Amino acid sequence: MQYNLFLFLALCLISMTNKTNAQQRARDYGISIGVLPTGVLNAITDVAGVQVGHLTKLEGEDIRTGVTAILPHSGNLFQEKVPAAVFIGNGFGKLAGTTQIEELGNIESPIILTNTLSVAAGIQGVIEYTLTFPGNEQVQSVNTVVGETNDGFLNDIRGQHIDKEDVLKAIQAASETHVQEGNVGAGTGTVCFGFKGGIGTSSRKLPASLGGYTVGVLVQSNFGGVLQIDGVPIGVELEQYSFKNQIESADGSCMIIVATDAPVNERNLKRMAQRAMMGLAKTGGIASNGSGDYVIAFSTDPQNRIPHSGNALQLNEHKYLQNDDMSALFLATIEATEEAIINSLFVAETMIGKSGRQVNALPKEKVIEIMKHYNRIQ
Amino acid sequence: MQYNLFLFLALCLISMTNKTNAQQRARDYGISIGVLPTGVLNAITDVAGVQVGHLTKLEGEDIRTGVTAILPHSGNLFQEKVPAAVFIGNGFGKLAGTTQIEELGNIESPIILTNTLSVAAGIQGVIEYTLTFPGNEQVQSVNTVVGETNDGFLNDIRGQHIDKEDVLKAIQAASETHVQEGNVGAGTGTVCFGFKGGIGTSSRKLPASLGGYTVGVLVQSNFGGVLQIDGVPIGVELEQYSFKNQIESADGSCMIIVATDAPVNERNLKRMAQRAMMGLAKTGGIASNGSGDYVIAFSTDPQNRIPHSGNALQLNEHKYLQNDDMSALFLATIEATEEAIINSLFVAETMIGKSGRQVNALPKEKVIEIMKHYNRIQ
Amino acid sequence: MQYNLFLFLALCLISMTNKTNAQQRARDYGISIGVLPTGVLNAITDVAGVQVGHLTKLEGEDIRTGVTAILPHSGNLFQEKVPAAVFIGNGFGKLAGTTQIEELGNIESPIILTNTLSVAAGIQGVIEYTLTFPGNEQVQSVNTVVGETNDGFLNDIRGQHIDKEDVLKAIQAASETHVQEGNVGAGTGTVCFGFKGGIGTSSRKLPASLGGYTVGVLVQSNFGGVLQIDGVPIGVELEQYSFKNQIESADGSCMIIVATDAPVNERNLKRMAQRAMMGLAKTGGIASNGSGDYVIAFSTDPQNRIPHSGNALQLNEHKYLQNDDMSALFLATIEATEEAIINSLFVAETMIGKSGRQVNALPKEKVIEIMKHYNRIQ
Amino acid sequence: MQYNLFLFLALCLISMTNKTNAQQRARDYGISIGVLPTGVLNAITDVAGVQVGHLTKLEGEDIRTGVTAILPHSGNLFQEKVPAAVFIGNGFGKLAGTTQIEELGNIESPIILTNTLSVAAGIQGVIEYTLTFPGNEQVQSVNTVVGETNDGFLNDIRGQHIDKEDVLKAIQAASETHVQEGNVGAGTGTVCFGFKGGIGTSSRKLPASLGGYTVGVLVQSNFGGVLQIDGVPIGVELEQYSFKNQIESADGSCMIIVATDAPVNERNLKRMAQRAMMGLAKTGGIASNGSGDYVIAFSTDPQNRIPHSGNALQLNEHKYLQNDDMSALFLATIEATEEAIINSLFVAETMIGKSGRQVNALPKEKVIEIMKHYNRIQ
Repeated sequence: MQYNLFLFLALCLISMTNKTNAQQRARDYGISIGVLPTGVLNAITDVAGVQVGHLTKLEGEDIRTGVTAILPHSGNLFQEKVPAAVFIGNGFGKLAGTTQIEELGNIESPIILTNTLSVAAGIQGVIEYTLTFPGNEQVQSVNTVVGETNDGFLNDIRGQHIDKEDVLKAIQAASETHVQEGNVGAGTGTVCFGFKGGIGTSSRKLPASLGGYTVGVLVQSNFGGVLQIDGVPIGVELEQYSFKNQIESADGSCMIIVATDAPVNERNLKRMAQRAMMGLAKTGGIASNGSGDYVIAFSTDPQNRIPHSGNALQLNEHKYLQNDDMSALFLATIEATEEAIINSLFVAETMIGKSGRQVNALPKEKVIEIMKHYNRIQ
Repeated sequence: MQYNLFLFLALCLISMTNKTNAQQRARDYGISIGVLPTGVLNAITDVAGVQVGHLTKLEGEDIRTGVTAILPHSGNLFQEKVPAAVFIGNGFGKLAGTTQIEELGNIESPIILTNTLSVAAGIQGVIEYTLTFPGNEQVQSVNTVVGETNDGFLNDIRGQHIDKEDVLKAIQAASETHVQEGNVGAGTGTVCFGFKGGIGTSSRKLPASLGGYTVGVLVQSNFGGVLQIDGVPIGVELEQYSFKNQIESADGSCMIIVATDAPVNERNLKRMAQRAMMGLAKTGGIASNGSGDYVIAFSTDPQNRIPHSGNALQLNEHKYLQNDDMSALFLATIEATEEAIINSLFVAETMIGKSGRQVNALPKEKVIEIMKHYNRIQ
Repeated sequence: MQYNLFLFLALCLISMTNKTNAQQRARDYGISIGVLPTGVLNAITDVAGVQVGHLTKLEGEDIRTGVTAILPHSGNLFQEKVPAAVFIGNGFGKLAGTTQIEELGNIESPIILTNTLSVAAGIQGVIEYTLTFPGNEQVQSVNTVVGETNDGFLNDIRGQHIDKEDVLKAIQAASETHVQEGNVGAGTGTVCFGFKGGIGTSSRKLPASLGGYTVGVLVQSNFGGVLQIDGVPIGVELEQYSFKNQIESADGSCMIIVATDAPVNERNLKRMAQRAMMGLAKTGGIASNGSGDYVIAFSTDPQNRIPHSGNALQLNEHKYLQNDDMSALFLATIEATEEAIINSLFVAETMIGKSGRQVNALPKEKVIEIMKHYNRIQ
Repeated sequence: MQYNLFLFLALCLISMTNKTNAQQRARDYGISIGVLPTGVLNAITDVAGVQVGHLTKLEGEDIRTGVTAILPHSGNLFQEKVPAAVFIGNGFGKLAGTTQIEELGNIESPIILTNTLSVAAGIQGVIEYTLTFPGNEQVQSVNTVVGETNDGFLNDIRGQHIDKEDVLKAIQAASETHVQEGNVGAGTGTVCFGFKGGIGTSSRKLPASLGGYTVGVLVQSNFGGVLQIDGVPIGVELEQYSFKNQIESADGSCMIIVATDAPVNERNLKRMAQRAMMGLAKTGGIASNGSGDYVIAFSTDPQNRIPHSGNALQLNEHKYLQNDDMSALFLATIEATEEAIINSLFVAETMIGKSGRQVNALPKEKVIEIMKHYNRIQ
């Protein structure tokens, strides 16, 4: 009985948490970015099979970091690779795995996001995950894909507090459902437009007349510029933006993951990835010199998976969308990226970290006021 | 006397025309894009030495095309090359000259814009210009840079009505002063966001504390998407945007020229060029499948010119900005590109062309109303 | 009767000429490059459907130039595109069409080779060919692929003696049979390793156990370096090579066309294209600063053609070789490129051109002697 | 006295060792690749300031691996970066650091080579090295450059026997003198053309009339193909080459480091890097599908170093070679790469490793016989 009561209370709590979380996203305030409809969760997990997991590390006064894992599908990724591509918005970053994705056109492991000095831990975690996955006993080489942004303002990044166990935990935590946003996982200690940034996600579902495909985006937001929310000049109104005082300001980065169930090949995935930077641009990001802005795009379409070991000379059969049908997917990518970044800002909360530094959350009440002043929401 | 009177009247007319033209630009309506100040002319010619010339061809009912020439400086470009780079936003286009710019890091000729099927005429014009330029008597090879967008909706493009003489006229017409915008030169027959597009230009001048450099942008706008003007959802309000009826709509292209007097090398010019696509994104462009979106960036800094024939083994001396100082130039590029596109829409006028087709100018009165509704202008 | 006799004699003569020609190729001297077998013709036309045509222009004392056309198939190339890719060995050249091949992954027109200042004529010829091809009445845009090398040492290149009619003639002359080599078409006036260069071709046919596919290569050789023939140091032995006198020597270029019937996509075609430069390297080429070294690769596989106008949202079906099965095609590309270049040298004959300049043919007797000295042939 | 005697004996020993080693290199057998002279050591360390260190791990029956570190100079690399570039011959590899080199044009840390599954250890070692280097107390981000090839045939690669301490040891062992080759460092367990591969190095010194610059190359050879030594068909004669039995054979990789003291910028370093693959091609390498073939090139020219923290808006002064003067450096890169690979084969010795597998050294006596048969050496 007690157990049941406990369970009931726990579920209520989860429900409340989710609701609270849900209320914090941009759409909950009436902000409706773009012209295309979202998927059910308005998250990267609207793309069937995609899983996201976080490991958040908040310890003492100085550790504010974590790991986020994105799995294209729940099976053996090494044996069943997915078509993939990378676009580099600005290459001041340490993303591992880019050249093999480009050369071979696929991804064969979970995608890991973490902090700049923990890429090695990410690689080690994914190697262990892959080598110990049933069926991979003979594997001697795996292309790990590990991205990062620098959370060193709030986090003791030089301490390198992420290890491969943390990475494995993030992978193990991955699920297809609700994606936590804000100060979680790789977004735990990040800063965006001078406010607390973090993980954000969004999705678009094309109408049937445009193919009915879904595009989902997840971001780790950690960059600067002149913030606009749905076109409204929030940064200027809040008097917080890059170069406000006519001097160079701090840099940052943005990792962007784009997933789709559309049957697109690696070349068209690269084109989609390139459009994600256009979504970032619409938030006022400028891909500043020090920003490591990378987009990784993959297709989950089950019919286009790439077996690791086909028979010699066997032809792989594919069905791909034509170039002419890509434009709606481009628009979907742009919109979902823009909204994912805005969601990261809406959900992230004020944080105090290393050396007592405080980064404030986006002042949502003021923002809403400004949005209303500009007649962008009621 | 009569002649002087005529001259006086002509100058008045020019002045009025200029004034009229000037009033039509976005800033004349109070639209002030971005946070950085413009240059004096708010045009690519704010970058000292840059020249722009147009040849507009409006003949009969079907010919609506032209040529625009951009000269990095007024000297012998072949003998005194400028550092340059190209970024490809979407490579569905016929831009000539890209691979040599990338390999050698420079431009050695005027940049020509025209229609898709007249690239050959552009090449021939620039070859003739270069071979006959005093001092080039031994030249046997020149890398011509000829971009295009497709004006075939309003123009009898299959008729190929541009010849090399037209190209030479555009080059000869080039001057460092006021840049004509709208339905001129290579913008004569173009269409943008469903409205009449054309040539547009804008500039930004950094404050001294950020280097004091100027960035100028010129565009040939001919693309689609979901138009936003300074963040305001004009396309949606006017009910004219891509995918509005949930079907694929027409494609287009955008050629973007970025000039700067900042001492930046070819690598950092490429980074600036990449940011121009972020400015395009802010207007609502999506770089659709059929769009040929290219950015050509060059530096006019006299101290960084590249002589065609230095002495063997002579070292070229350069002074370059550090990577760390590039971010303000990135922002300047984004803002000037956004505003150049909007200017092209503001200045272009309704045109009737091939097969009696009509493309309307941006309905400026309605636009202003919407801008006011959204409190973006007074 | 007399007529028939004449015809008979003419055919004999042609036959003898062909035989003579055939004897002049490297293999006719016992030089057997590589470990893979050639196709029947040892030519790019061993790839079924590929057609090659030349227009040779030898006029007066100064005109030594021409056009070579390569057609991936004999149908409507615009309506039935082929997967394609470009690799840039050294981008000091004016190849038109690269960015669209890269963006869209296909070629939609004949490939034209000519001289550096006649690229415009090439574009015009292909536009006319495409616009007037039955079924293309609505076409308003075509990506022409026109490569070049600089034949200005022997040819009055500044005179621009190629026009679009010449280009159309080369296309019309295209056939699937014997490919003329040496001083023909775009190779008429070229120079290679200091000897007379020109057009060369070769092919490889994989054994069934490696897929049975054919790779054919055609080159327009016009470059320098330190000539090796099947590994033998011919350039050094003949005392004719770059930097021999420790000073910078003349530059050049090489256009390389790679055709295959293997079902490979654009990404793997790019990888094949990249290997062609490795074949060039084995001849002693160094891709010097002034060399425009480009490789264009396409697949003729009928099942992987790309229709210009599929129905909206229709998926294109493809069957592609796996990455793992590409290596033998890489080796085939390397070997066929090496041999195509050597063939161009063997077949080209001494030519006197502009300003009375003479470029000697490879001194084949001496070469054979050297090859024997090094025990490379009997 | 005793001390002096000890020193004397030690020097004799070193001398003998060196001599023994020296005798094993290709030139010691009279094989003289190319037309340009070598540097004094015929090693990458002929480029002044470049340091190389190895950590070799030979333990038990299954551990056959190691680390090789290359330092562009002996100072604080993070604070005094060097211009650099990467060229990707075939991207089936895990090289970390590529995108930042490309974006920023420099390298800021030692370059590490190791095995495929130890890239993370390489990153960790370089991070620790950089963070603890005097003067780097504030560093929170460093772009580590860690390449690898797969030594899993001879080494228990899944055991991941390299840790960051090993990496630090390799860095600490780095010196400017004699470079050990063969079964050392990252080359301990590698296989090349079916024979034992390993570390190899070579250099070229241009004559004064071509600039007098030095190019040094170091390789970690681990790839396949059809071996040629100075053009002689060794692989065929020894009946050991890829596809000999008309079936797909094992893959491999090659890491290539190119150093020069020539004052060349990042763009021209990339062009040099690209030529290294042409040197690999001349050994018979084919850059097979599974090969991770990467070239990293940097310039040590002290006048072109890039300070990490210049004053804001300060211009960096550079003196660069002109494009026109690059060709001799291209040839030097090709020759040094070819010879470095051949040296790796000559010096490497037969090794027995994992599961009792044995990989034989190149049978040098037979090779010499064949070289003589082909009159390539006396």
